This record gives sequence, structure tokens and C-alpha cells, in this order.
Amino acid sequence: MLFPSGVFCYNNPMKNILLTIEYDGTDFSGWQRQPGRRTVQGELERALSVICRQEIVLQGASRTDAGVHAFGQRASFSGEFGIPTEKIPVAANHLLAGEGPCSVGDVRITKAEEVDLKFHPRFDAKGKKYIYRILNSQRPDIMQRNYRYQIERPLDLDAMRMAASYLPGEQDFRSFMAAGGHEPESTVRTVYSVSWRQELIASQKDDADISFEIIGSGFLYNMVRIIAGTLADVGLGKIGADQMKTIIEKRDRQYAGHTAPPQGLYLSQVYFNKEELYENQRDV
Amino acid sequence: MLFPSGVFCYNNPMKNILLTIEYDGTDFSGWQRQPGRRTVQGELERALSVICRQEIVLQGASRTDAGVHAFGQRASFSGEFGIPTEKIPVAANHLLAGEGPCSVGDVRITKAEEVDLKFHPRFDAKGKKYIYRILNSQRPDIMQRNYRYQIERPLDLDAMRMAASYLPGEQDFRSFMAAGGHEPESTVRTVYSVSWRQELIASQKDDADISFEIIGSGFLYNMVRIIAGTLADVGLGKIGADQMKTIIEKRDRQYAGHTAPPQGLYLSQVYFNKEELYENQRDV
Repeated sequence: MLFPSGVFCYNNPMKNILLTIEYDGTDFSGWQRQPGRRTVQGELERALSVICRQEIVLQGASRTDAGVHAFGQRASFSGEFGIPTEKIPVAANHLLAGEGPCSVGDVRITKAEEVDLKFHPRFDAKGKKYIYRILNSQRPDIMQRNYRYQIERPLDLDAMRMAASYLPGEQDFRSFMAAGGHEPESTVRTVYSVSWRQELIASQKDDADISFEIIGSGFLYNMVRIIAGTLADVGLGKIGADQMKTIIEKRDRQYAGHTAPPQGLYLSQVYFNKEELYENQRDV
Repeated sequence: MLFPSGVFCYNNPMKNILLTIEYDGTDFSGWQRQPGRRTVQGELERALSVICRQEIVLQGASRTDAGVHAFGQRASFSGEFGIPTEKIPVAANHLLAGEGPCSVGDVRITKAEEVDLKFHPRFDAKGKKYIYRILNSQRPDIMQRNYRYQIERPLDLDAMRMAASYLPGEQDFRSFMAAGGHEPESTVRTVYSVSWRQELIASQKDDADISFEIIGSGFLYNMVRIIAGTLADVGLGKIGADQMKTIIEKRDRQYAGHTAPPQGLYLSQVYFNKEELYENQRDV
């Protein structure tokens, strides 16, 4: 301690803090701060500015759309602040939570850690994992309306798996890029793996909770939602499973299927080193 | 057919239609119609008035509070309308659903049936079943914030079961009645059964999804929520399990525990005959 006890220490060292964040995207206009709108970045910056006693600007790893959820969004901010790093989640979550006995908010910081001052969650990301969830049931589940893409007609999961098998690899995914985003330098990305999970709903024969996890080096604007919509079209028989190869080769959005709704999409994890990324692939 | 084909039949017979309704209470100011507010009754009446081409007024079986959900609300309406009874759910749900590919609304008619003209869902109800859901976990689940009462400290479920065992029977439940409702003629009700379900959450040791089902002849204002809050206080050790007997005997709200939040409460079923009511008790 350079300061004698009893003297208030206002010269705090410069720190760069990396957060892990989860949110329910339902009531947010997406991640990115926008004037007059409730966004995840905006709410977090407001809470962090209070607890750090200075204006905080967050750098997010992924700009998720309105309605998209996250278990493992990452964002960083730097400055010279007094609050110990490990106290940031509890203090911020207290401000982010709702009132009353059921005071669970719709955004929550699950971890805060100190990282190198040069670290940037977008530029240093080596890959991301997204999950897309579909409820395939003849009977809609109203309590899940913001958390699943609900499809009533039965889906051919084998055809969907087959179509998805064309995705892994380093390829030009321009066919799965929506207009409206920033034009990227390149539309080549690497999809490392696509894995599936199917849970039958005990009470209803033939109904299933279907989800797929996709791990990639990066994703183009709306890429996972367009992949999910195309796979749903394959499952419904509108697109043949082997057409997937042609769709990719065409490098043209009009050949792919519809854009699946944001409600089914979850940002699951952001990887900052290759080892973590490879480990996760082995798990699936 | 009394009318030759080609002549429009406008003399439809008087019918009384009983609906079964499910809703997610999150975005509603409760069941009952109120000017300037979005209520379940209001939304349903608007949709039914369109498809029946006349002003529809619904009689509901239960006036659920804001935030309370229902799988099995019942409501009736009568009039002389052209639409066949069996087509009412699909036609009304079409108007009630949201737009876009994930067009699941937050209220849905699951059944429509013709009943006697004198039938009234509130006066003819012989009993009701409510479910109350608690998520007992150290880690809040943000996606469940509108669907569970989330309690972080571990609950003693055995103590809660013991306390709940004092509830069944014909008793004066005044201690579990909130102020603010209509003063009922009598505060004596019969609780037929309380049954418990506990599901451990696989991923998190000691965490549990706890719910209880309560079947009764009828319920006082906020009765299930005050029972749930009192049982939670028992589970947390704030109230002894055997105090439940005294709480009931006191016939005074101040002896019972807190009012649990509406998010955990579900109107599960309304019984219109004793047989159905007894059958359901045998099941539990």
C-alpha cells in the first residue's frame, strides 16, 4: 500500500474489465445503444456508470438483434475505478434487477475479470457459439412464445441434419447474409461444427424441442437466423437437403430459405483462444 | 334447413358458449376488462366481437390478477351468431396471435363448447385447481423471471409439506385473504388437496423446481399467493411448520406470511361438477 491508512485513495490504476453477461432479449431493442430505446448495452452502461462513478462505454463481442437472447455475451470497459473487480457483478445486478419479491431482471452480469489493457472482445474473439431453438408441436406453447421458433407442421429432422452437414468448413457464406448490415471485408467464415439436440415432449406424441448449436469463427449479419430458416424449410420439404450445397455455392441470399425469428436465437459463448474453441468442438 | 339455399340465414338460434382459455399473464393487467388497459377479458371480447359480428361480453370463472397465468381459465358468452361453435377457437386465435413467422400470441382459446343457456362459469363452478411454481436456486434464471417465484436461499421442502398438511378441509381461511377485494359473504372454503412436485435441476446441485397444486371449492382474494408466501416463509425457517394451525385459527391476515408474487401462479382448471373434482383429487 503506497497510501497510509485513512487517506482516501483516488489514484486507482487503469484497468480493463471483461464481463460475461446473460439476457432475455424480449424487452430490448437489441444489444447496441440507441437514443430513446431500451438496449442491453444502454442498460448495462447506465448501471456500471453508477457503480464506477464515471461514464462507462462498453465494447461488446456481438451486436445481437432485438429479441435475441444471450447466455454468454462478453463485453469490456476500461477506466480507473475504485470498485474491486469481483464486486462488480453483485453491485451492477442489484441496479439491473426489478423491484418486488420476484426481483429478477432481464439482464445480468455473471462474471467480471481483469484482462490486458489491449484486449478487445470483438477483435480478439476467435469464435462464437450460437444455439437456435425450435418447438415443433401442433399445439403452440404460449409461455414459450419469446423463447422458441414454434413450427406446427412436423419437421423431418434427418433431412435437416443432412442439410446442415454441408455447413462445416471454411466457405463463402454470402447466401446466408442479410442486407442491411455493414458490408464486411470478406464473406468467408469457418463453421467448425453443427450439433443437434432433440427432446421429445413427454406429454405430446411426436412433438419435439429441437435445437442446434453452431460454432464458427464469426458470423455474417443474420447468418444463424437465415441458416435456421433454411434448415426449417428443408425440414418442411420446401427445400431438398442436398440443395444446401448449391445454396452455398450460389453466394446469393435469394437461394437460401427464410429468416427464422430472433426469439429462437441464443448467443451461447464467445471464444478468445483456439484451445477453448477446439475443446468445445470435441464436446459436441 | 328451414331456409332455401341461397337465402342468407340471419335468424341464428340463441347459444351459450363456454370457452377454455390459456394465457401468459405477463403483459396483461389481469383478467378483468378495464378502460385503457390491456386485459385478457378485453382482448378476448374484442376478437370474439369481430368473429361473431356483435358486441360480446364474457363471464369469466376467475378474475386473475396482473401477472398471473392460466392453462384452464373458463369463460362464457351468449348470443345469436352465425359462426359454428367449433370454428370459434381457430378464428379468434387468428386475431389474437401476433404477426410474423413466430406468431404465437399470449392468449389462446383451446376449446369452445355449447352449454345450457342458464350456465354461468362463476356461479356454476364447483371448484378450482391452481398451481404455484417456485424456482429454488442460488442462481436466478432470467428467462423464467415471469414464470417462477425465484428464491435463492435453500427451502426446507419437508417443513413446507408439513405446514401444507393443515390446509385441507372445510375451514375459515380469513388469515389468507388480502384486503382490497370484495368482502365475501363467508370466508369459509374447502381445500380438497395440496400436492407437491419437485424436480431437481440436473445441471445445478441442490437447485429445484418446486410446485404445488391446490384444489379447493373456491379461493379468497389472493388466497393462493398468501398460502404460497406463508409456505415459502416456512421453508426459509421464518415460520415453524406447526404454526400453520395457529395461523388458520387466528382468522387474521397479519399472522400469515408474505404474499408471493403473481408470476408463480397458474389457474390450472375449473371444475363444474363434483365427479371431475373428485377424480382429480384421486390422481394426485
